[in-house]
Amino acid sequence: MSAHKGNETVVFSTPVSILETASAVGTKEGEGPLGKLFDRVLEDNMAGEKSWEAAESALVRDNLSALFKKSGVSPDFIFAGDLQNQCCGTTYGVKDLNIPLFGIFGACSTFGEALALGAVSVDSGAARYAAAAASSHFYSAERQFRFPAELGNQRPPTAGYTVTGAGAAMLGKGDGPYITSFTAGKITDYGINDANNMGAAMAPAAAACIKAHLEETGRNAGYYDVIATGDLGYVGTELLLQLLEKDGINIEKNHTDCGIEIFDNKSQDTHAGGSGCACSAAVFSALFYRKLKNGSIKRMLLVPTGALMSTVSVQQGENILGTAFAVSVENEVIKWTI
Amino acid sequence: MSAHKGNETVVFSTPVSILETASAVGTKEGEGPLGKLFDRVLEDNMAGEKSWEAAESALVRDNLSALFKKSGVSPDFIFAGDLQNQCCGTTYGVKDLNIPLFGIFGACSTFGEALALGAVSVDSGAARYAAAAASSHFYSAERQFRFPAELGNQRPPTAGYTVTGAGAAMLGKGDGPYITSFTAGKITDYGINDANNMGAAMAPAAAACIKAHLEETGRNAGYYDVIATGDLGYVGTELLLQLLEKDGINIEKNHTDCGIEIFDNKSQDTHAGGSGCACSAAVFSALFYRKLKNGSIKRMLLVPTGALMSTVSVQQGENILGTAFAVSVENEVIKWTI
Repeated sequence: MSAHKGNETVVFSTPVSILETASAVGTKEGEGPLGKLFDRVLEDNMAGEKSWEAAESALVRDNLSALFKKSGVSPDFIFAGDLQNQCCGTTYGVKDLNIPLFGIFGACSTFGEALALGAVSVDSGAARYAAAAASSHFYSAERQFRFPAELGNQRPPTAGYTVTGAGAAMLGKGDGPYITSFTAGKITDYGINDANNMGAAMAPAAAACIKAHLEETGRNAGYYDVIATGDLGYVGTELLLQLLEKDGINIEKNHTDCGIEIFDNKSQDTHAGGSGCACSAAVFSALFYRKLKNGSIKRMLLVPTGALMSTVSVQQGENILGTAFAVSVENEVIKWTI
Repeated sequence: MSAHKGNETVVFSTPVSILETASAVGTKEGEGPLGKLFDRVLEDNMAGEKSWEAAESALVRDNLSALFKKSGVSPDFIFAGDLQNQCCGTTYGVKDLNIPLFGIFGACSTFGEALALGAVSVDSGAARYAAAAASSHFYSAERQFRFPAELGNQRPPTAGYTVTGAGAAMLGKGDGPYITSFTAGKITDYGINDANNMGAAMAPAAAACIKAHLEETGRNAGYYDVIATGDLGYVGTELLLQLLEKDGINIEKNHTDCGIEIFDNKSQDTHAGGSGCACSAAVFSALFYRKLKNGSIKRMLLVPTGALMSTVSVQQGENILGTAFAVSVENEVIKWTI
């Protein structure tokens, strides 16, 4: 059983376990500070395929297969998505796995959305096991949203660096860590229309979602050992902290951003930091899940953030919208009053 | 409570009610055989906006607002998607509604996916009310997937005609009709790569999904008063009937297709029939929900069908994949043994 709490939050009275995770990344991510934590690092970002798009699908397929093997179970449903038009990275990636797909699109917040929907499906009994997954690929995203990388266009300092990779979690009934609640953020529109500054478009959504989560669960920011946003990067993080400060919420001590964690921006020239659906998915799967498992953190709020737009919407002068999903993952079973 | 049954099916032991529906369509759909059943028919397919894409978003927004008004409730979550790159028809459509969005992508099967996820969320308690919605627009889809309509390119006889419209349902606890079960189909790949023959790509997915549904629920095809596929059109329907016949399943008497229902293909020059996410969403909302409400049908299986592809995947030589969600909607509460 779960219950809706406040306007945007769902709390689970029966714990939904994250049984296992799996992660795979590209070469540059493998050279970054978390390189040794990923289950797999590609030797070549083409992954033996003929196109960047097919390479992303291969990442999705192989990472989910690794998840099934690591967890020892096959899920009833897969909840997954990516940044490619019509979510093709995911659909072509899962087509041979022979498991029904619920395709989802939350831009770079997709992993949060997948965890939330997977948890609800396990909670209701609709799925005994559910896989939540997300992926992105630097070269498929760059040529779709901005310029083909081969052109060598200069990237402004506010631009994020799309993570090549995939992250996935197997949800079911079992030991901790547990998904104990989530808050599904509302769409925000702060008038940002620079596709090279997604952090600014997503920061207000992250701030609103974190604020709603804390209010609706009755928790304060210090409750969590870690509050990790998805891919705000350096620019978006600064805005997030300022926006929350205005509301009297200080998360400076326990906040980090997956886009800051995954690259060393000084030596790796990644500007604002990592971005893309795979950023929070792979960093959670490789870094935070491990920390929760070994007890070095006990309670975390994972807040994957998404910039909702397309090349067409930007060309037509629409603003870039923001969204976020805050998922609380804790080692202890929480007895919610519902 | 719900339970997973077989490999792909979910049955609800507590009924989830479809409390209300709302539908809006474009001018051509308004001139079709169902014209008088839709809540709203646009006088101009631009809907007062500056682009076809913005017109689709206006349809989404206004149709959901109409649903909230008709049902007298505001949902906790919206489950919705469309065909535009990065689901922009939906995200820009719901942005001012101030309700969290779970963006989904199942191509033209999106409405089935939305009903399934909405029902699971109501069943689990995660949402007290959930809105399930889908949309498409002829002109935004044509120029994105094929050619700008202004070019006047000839359309082959196998091509579907994308429905301009939106359909939405409010799910919650209440009177019938109820969503009593659903079957989430697996992705099929029959080697189809003609973007002007989506019916052929989707028919195998529909056949496999219907077969799995009947097997896993222990029902025979005659159980349902109506089995309505989403947008197979005339070409896909013929293939569907042949494929099921091979497996000893005959649905000729109770089958129809929303793409066949929505247009008069003789007088309206719509070739293979209606297609697009809005096809099953608007036809269910306007036609079948009404029939269920007035008792002229008591049990139906709605099977929205989706062709998974993008212009990039087609240009790269990938096949067009198929998917389907079968949602059983019945006037009686079904006591599943779970």
